[in-house]
Amino acid sequence: MMCDGGEVGERLVVVGADAGGMAAASQARRLRPDLEIVAFDQGSWASYSACGIPYVVGGEVRHVEDLVARTPEEFRDRQRIDVRLRHRVTSIDVAARTITLVDLDGDVARTEHYDQLLLGTGARPIRPALPGIDLPFVRGVKTLDDATAMQALADDLGCRHVTVVGGGYIGLEMAEAFIRWGAEVTLLEAADEVMRTLDPELAAQVRSSLVGLGVDVRLNTALTGCSEGTVHTEAGDVHADLVVLGLGVVPNGELAAAAGIEVGVRGAIVVDEHQRTSVPGVWAAGDCCTSVHLVTGEQVHVALGTVANRQGRVAGLDIAGIEATFPGVLGSAVTKICNLEIGLTGLGAHEATGAGFGHAAATIESTTRAGYFPGATPITVRLRYEVATGRVLGGQIVGGPGSAKRIDVVATAITAGMTVEQVRDLDLSYAPPFSPVWDPVQVAARVAASARPS
Amino acid sequence: MMCDGGEVGERLVVVGADAGGMAAASQARRLRPDLEIVAFDQGSWASYSACGIPYVVGGEVRHVEDLVARTPEEFRDRQRIDVRLRHRVTSIDVAARTITLVDLDGDVARTEHYDQLLLGTGARPIRPALPGIDLPFVRGVKTLDDATAMQALADDLGCRHVTVVGGGYIGLEMAEAFIRWGAEVTLLEAADEVMRTLDPELAAQVRSSLVGLGVDVRLNTALTGCSEGTVHTEAGDVHADLVVLGLGVVPNGELAAAAGIEVGVRGAIVVDEHQRTSVPGVWAAGDCCTSVHLVTGEQVHVALGTVANRQGRVAGLDIAGIEATFPGVLGSAVTKICNLEIGLTGLGAHEATGAGFGHAAATIESTTRAGYFPGATPITVRLRYEVATGRVLGGQIVGGPGSAKRIDVVATAITAGMTVEQVRDLDLSYAPPFSPVWDPVQVAARVAASARPS
Repeated sequence: MMCDGGEVGERLVVVGADAGGMAAASQARRLRPDLEIVAFDQGSWASYSACGIPYVVGGEVRHVEDLVARTPEEFRDRQRIDVRLRHRVTSIDVAARTITLVDLDGDVARTEHYDQLLLGTGARPIRPALPGIDLPFVRGVKTLDDATAMQALADDLGCRHVTVVGGGYIGLEMAEAFIRWGAEVTLLEAADEVMRTLDPELAAQVRSSLVGLGVDVRLNTALTGCSEGTVHTEAGDVHADLVVLGLGVVPNGELAAAAGIEVGVRGAIVVDEHQRTSVPGVWAAGDCCTSVHLVTGEQVHVALGTVANRQGRVAGLDIAGIEATFPGVLGSAVTKICNLEIGLTGLGAHEATGAGFGHAAATIESTTRAGYFPGATPITVRLRYEVATGRVLGGQIVGGPGSAKRIDVVATAITAGMTVEQVRDLDLSYAPPFSPVWDPVQVAARVAASARPS
Repeated sequence: MMCDGGEVGERLVVVGADAGGMAAASQARRLRPDLEIVAFDQGSWASYSACGIPYVVGGEVRHVEDLVARTPEEFRDRQRIDVRLRHRVTSIDVAARTITLVDLDGDVARTEHYDQLLLGTGARPIRPALPGIDLPFVRGVKTLDDATAMQALADDLGCRHVTVVGGGYIGLEMAEAFIRWGAEVTLLEAADEVMRTLDPELAAQVRSSLVGLGVDVRLNTALTGCSEGTVHTEAGDVHADLVVLGLGVVPNGELAAAAGIEVGVRGAIVVDEHQRTSVPGVWAAGDCCTSVHLVTGEQVHVALGTVANRQGRVAGLDIAGIEATFPGVLGSAVTKICNLEIGLTGLGAHEATGAGFGHAAATIESTTRAGYFPGATPITVRLRYEVATGRVLGGQIVGGPGSAKRIDVVATAITAGMTVEQVRDLDLSYAPPFSPVWDPVQVAARVAASARPS
């Protein structure tokens, strides 16, 4: 299928030069040597791994620059893509096919034409409207500018005490990072458990691991505000040289919304399976836009680098006139706290109930390797399924080294519409250094299958 | 579905007290408290992990006994299963429903009745008919008796030089084990490359790893015979204090064949999806019997602990009157040589051609973690697919720590009948310590999809 455009001399403008935007630009370039491609980004970096920020802070990765996948020079020299950093796009005129932008160094506004516009505006850390939340010692974790600012702040202050607000995976990774950095770390979580994407039984293991690491975990403790050197909570004040926000992100959909482009769930830009927005010639990819959930079929907002890259690829193909579709997401994710690995995919208990499934879960304990093999560690697998059909709805894994990536088998099974019986019967690989003879995922499937009405 | 039997006082006799036989016995016991269950085995051990033998020799696992999953006493006390070791079953009378057996210690033959008979007679190392092949210093790797004999031989002789015959995964594991043990190791392979289950490009990496470990790998070198202290080959003699056979296994189907039970491919006992043999009341599970290959639909003989356990479970359920089926195998397997991990599933090049597929493969190089993350190591993924449909036929992976178990995603995808496009579009998990943002399996799928006619 040929999409909009195709004539020689066409111009693709990309807003936001990170995963979604640059994956689209790179893919479009490959197929359309004739295309003029310009990418604007308000930040100081293009195409970087935001997921690597905690490891720079923790010292496992040495330099912020190590996270940069490709520099503007490389985009220019290797792909003829013109990346202009520190340029903020302030408005879009979809009728005129122009954008207005400001060069942040020159502070000069100007208008540029586009034939195709790809919005990769990303997302930003949630910053609740509380007193003192905009003080410089309160930082989100999203851009490399955030990373360098946190490093500078930590270095300048000798930063002995860091308070992390929010017990999601970014919060946990940053808590571990600052422990490694040498700080005392307090983690505030408004709910009664960390990692609300995990079912409570598994989240408790994660919390224990954090506590074992030396993090002062305070549950049921909501932030009420900040003042220099102090974090205020409902349960009293906490000293803090640095506050790290780990409350999740909101999509940067405002630019699109102001231009009359449809936005949806959580303000994310609504796209179809081709990454087309509601306006012809305007596409979106990455953290700024919606996805379809593969299990529920609902529009969701999932901000993950994997999704951004895959959506960008699809957008780039479609912009180049090659039909491609992005089928949707499961929210598959992995992380680790020290040696405790965490993997999840699909629906948790609340999500399954919310989506109207009659569901249940089987939870099993096994080992990552044959029980007798050195380095075998405990692993917990929780497999959620639809009771009536046996269809797998979601999976959660917490365990030692070698645990988390097993979630990919569950993600593959969910995508294929497999039942717990079919997962039980898979011919998965085995050797003593890698697995017990029944892989833990299959043990969970076996228990689930046994619990179903036959 | 009710199968044969079901009346009170029924007797299940199991021949061979290892994975297949004891999985069946345990499963039957759970559902049929009334059943009398007796298991005979000619060896000195029941229910052990043969896959762990190389790690005992290499010293990673301390004692042979560590490989025993359950002792005869445990079977008796916990499951009321009567396991009698050192009893060799010499014939079956399927009309009379009796077996004849010899107590190897008393050397007394006797006859026992069965209502249901489960054959779990396993397989034995291939021992080519060559001069000196039965000398005591030539050992297979199959039973714990083999393991103790090898250890004793190695200890007694001070065993400085070990020759491993055959470059399959057992041969490679034993070569590494004896290097760890402190011996000089020569590996003889008759073909022009080790690991013939891998395509040559990947097998060469495995060979390099062995050579790097200090193994003297001799390709195109067929064994012609043995005499005390010496291995004879077409290319001259090799000194050897111990010879380890790694030439694969043959199913122990002779007992069944002699009783008129149908045997098939390589002499393995033919079973249907319920693990029923051609004779009513006689079942088989594990290394002694056939399986159906999930890709080709052909009868194959695959000797793997995973398959034996799953087939045993199915046989036990069916014996207990609960319908269950074993869908088939992909031949999924993992192993490692030092830090080089190897995973494979489904069809390799020769198998795909043999099965009549129009096929091709995409081979990619990536890293096990984000490229900038400490501990990222190279990984090669080779994905084979049917050109006309894009259906995934097989996968092979060679790479550093964290590589091999990724093959399970491929195994799941093959089982679900997925195409390379569908694998490319999977929502697999990502974080810098675990994977690049495109998992290597998906990079291979992406390359494969790009190469297909659109």
